[in-house]
Amino acid sequence: MRAVDIIIQKRDKRELSREEIEFFIHGFVAGQIPDYQAAAFAMAVLLNGMTPAETTALTLAMAHSGQTLDLSQVVDIAVDKHSSGGVGDKTSISVMPMVAACGLPVGKMSGRGLGFTGGTLDKLESVPGYRCDLTTEEFKKQLKEKGIVLTGQSLDLAPADGKLYALRDVTGTVPSMPLIASSIMSKKIAAGAQAIVLDVKVGLGAFMQTLEEARVLADLMMDIGRLAGRKTVALLSDMNQPLGSAVGNALEMVEAIELLRGRAPRDYYEHCLHVAAHLLVLGGRAKNLQEGREMAQRSIEDGGALEKLRVLIQAQGGDVAYIDDIGRFERAKFIETVKSPRSGFVSQVHARLVGEAAAALGAGRAKKGDPIDRAVGFLIHKKVGDKVEAGEPLFEIHANDEKKLAEARTNVLSAYRFSDEFVPPLPLFYG
Amino acid sequence: MRAVDIIIQKRDKRELSREEIEFFIHGFVAGQIPDYQAAAFAMAVLLNGMTPAETTALTLAMAHSGQTLDLSQVVDIAVDKHSSGGVGDKTSISVMPMVAACGLPVGKMSGRGLGFTGGTLDKLESVPGYRCDLTTEEFKKQLKEKGIVLTGQSLDLAPADGKLYALRDVTGTVPSMPLIASSIMSKKIAAGAQAIVLDVKVGLGAFMQTLEEARVLADLMMDIGRLAGRKTVALLSDMNQPLGSAVGNALEMVEAIELLRGRAPRDYYEHCLHVAAHLLVLGGRAKNLQEGREMAQRSIEDGGALEKLRVLIQAQGGDVAYIDDIGRFERAKFIETVKSPRSGFVSQVHARLVGEAAAALGAGRAKKGDPIDRAVGFLIHKKVGDKVEAGEPLFEIHANDEKKLAEARTNVLSAYRFSDEFVPPLPLFYG
Repeated sequence: MRAVDIIIQKRDKRELSREEIEFFIHGFVAGQIPDYQAAAFAMAVLLNGMTPAETTALTLAMAHSGQTLDLSQVVDIAVDKHSSGGVGDKTSISVMPMVAACGLPVGKMSGRGLGFTGGTLDKLESVPGYRCDLTTEEFKKQLKEKGIVLTGQSLDLAPADGKLYALRDVTGTVPSMPLIASSIMSKKIAAGAQAIVLDVKVGLGAFMQTLEEARVLADLMMDIGRLAGRKTVALLSDMNQPLGSAVGNALEMVEAIELLRGRAPRDYYEHCLHVAAHLLVLGGRAKNLQEGREMAQRSIEDGGALEKLRVLIQAQGGDVAYIDDIGRFERAKFIETVKSPRSGFVSQVHARLVGEAAAALGAGRAKKGDPIDRAVGFLIHKKVGDKVEAGEPLFEIHANDEKKLAEARTNVLSAYRFSDEFVPPLPLFYG
Repeated sequence: MRAVDIIIQKRDKRELSREEIEFFIHGFVAGQIPDYQAAAFAMAVLLNGMTPAETTALTLAMAHSGQTLDLSQVVDIAVDKHSSGGVGDKTSISVMPMVAACGLPVGKMSGRGLGFTGGTLDKLESVPGYRCDLTTEEFKKQLKEKGIVLTGQSLDLAPADGKLYALRDVTGTVPSMPLIASSIMSKKIAAGAQAIVLDVKVGLGAFMQTLEEARVLADLMMDIGRLAGRKTVALLSDMNQPLGSAVGNALEMVEAIELLRGRAPRDYYEHCLHVAAHLLVLGGRAKNLQEGREMAQRSIEDGGALEKLRVLIQAQGGDVAYIDDIGRFERAKFIETVKSPRSGFVSQVHARLVGEAAAALGAGRAKKGDPIDRAVGFLIHKKVGDKVEAGEPLFEIHANDEKKLAEARTNVLSAYRFSDEFVPPLPLFYG
């Protein structure tokens, strides 16, 4: 087998076999197939596509290109959730304690924020002492004993994906459905997931801007899940405006805690119930979504979910006092409420613009490894469909620098659009 | 400007500007744009195509990526010919003395054979002493004084093409019309050609297997010539069977000399007259093809062309005695005439199979730099359309090894097809 013949086959729109895809990926990771051949291959895949069978073979080859996590001795069924990334998406921090409180153990490896999207680890670390660097053994032990883990990636999971992604980034081969889908699914499979809830974000603040592309991606990932023997559910959720109210690390952490006390914006609450219900069904704890939803609701009402969050924070070295008293979280030096410049109905709160404004305040990083400011961000008071009077509070800025505060004011105001006519609220889910 | 944005533009089927193409090619040659970006770019070009304007910009960027030859002080008009490569194609060796004898100075840089196709330099070097390594100064001096030069490439012409071709070879991006056309034309332009006759071979022994693709390539190269301000004519000539009778270096050299004495197979003679006529018209020595053809014919009849060949051989250090007495050329140890296994009409003499059989005998090389055996090869006596009786001589093998002789017998016989019905001869030109 020769790499060039595999490229030629894809160039000529012929389907590749599992053996050919494995040969290519293994050779690429081993350094036997050079970057230039992988780049030509990626461009041929982007322009000529891949069948679900080819995409599944690619996913599994990448998943098995490095270490993998085997949770079969630790839990009955290893469930995982993946969000395609957005603004104000702190779902994991609330949902995982909810499902764990319902008796479904959940262990998850999360990432950090990049660009205008936040990362779960950055939010959790606003609790002093919280460790995101558990070893594999610590991960397994905590999952078995406490039923909940939320940490960073300790293993070298799916190194082929990391290497290929870096190459795609500089060769114009990022926006390919088979390459995106296999990238996401390979990491989940390498992390030992047997059942996966995929939250595919759609809209102005998401990678997928149209419902049509989001649906294609979701269908493809479900195909991969099915062909790879993983139970998979994909949700299409709105990311035209930020999820919930808080945008920024400590602010989002507080909102995630408050949700477990039953105090949270309606959209964020509904979103969490829906994701939790799917996880409980996939994990075999609920017979159907209605039952899963009721269980999740109850876990909040009876304090079980909040208690599980306390267990998680404590197990990973965090200061539990922060959970019991959110007043302890670091606060920014300047907090300013910005009022609505006009009356009407809010018709847009552009998610990407808000995300970029938060990053500019210091909440995000331009490149891996950059430091971030956990205290800064926004509370978005008025969202799409809300009626607002001129002078009414629209949003709140938390900043540590007066110049940046002023810039943020302009930036977030420019994310807003108003209408004189009634505007219906955005749906939470599209399917 | 960023390389990745140029790749993305081509990926998305948008036309590139001259500036963008120049930026990419210059960056690539300078090593600032890595191979993996060039590979992704080449695949995007192959799959999405290029307009004639883009292809011309690419050609000129490659032509000016290194040294160029300026012949404007040496000749009135620098003419050149290019053959896309075939089996038994010794045209340059006969045609250049013909046109030089008609008063049109011609200087040409040729290449060596690779795979099943022969190279002009390898054929010329069967004359002892003949030098193919003239310096640029020697080239210009000889062209001015003698009116004829045929040597190897001394300058680093179009290095971008060499670098890109090596990359295309290993990334499955060879068969792209814009990349093939720009590769050929960039070298001609760098070598100073102002008028170019392109001999595009079509058929079983050519890179272009169908008339349709050959026509597309020819049209594209004429477009480039026009847009780059070069007079360009493209001929489509048959390469289903070998051209003429001789295949193999010394055998072909002898056939090229014999043509200038008026003793040559009809197809090869007609081919040479046609190419010479076009060169004479382009070079302004003949008013039309008919006149060019008559001038070329006269150059053979009056011995002028043969004399020009003697001038060429002598000027480049070759032993002229070989031109006057072809019996001096090195002969193979074993010469065998193979007889026809049946009566009928020859319907095929598969050019690629004959070329591969010659290479197997030692006449060709598998990779650059391999040694070759100049004496071995074939004389093809019966060609498509010829009537043949069982037992009549079909072809002659010249070999230096008995085992290889036996293999060659089988190989060339397998290139033959016969028919009971009359088969018309193959046309020499398709347009």
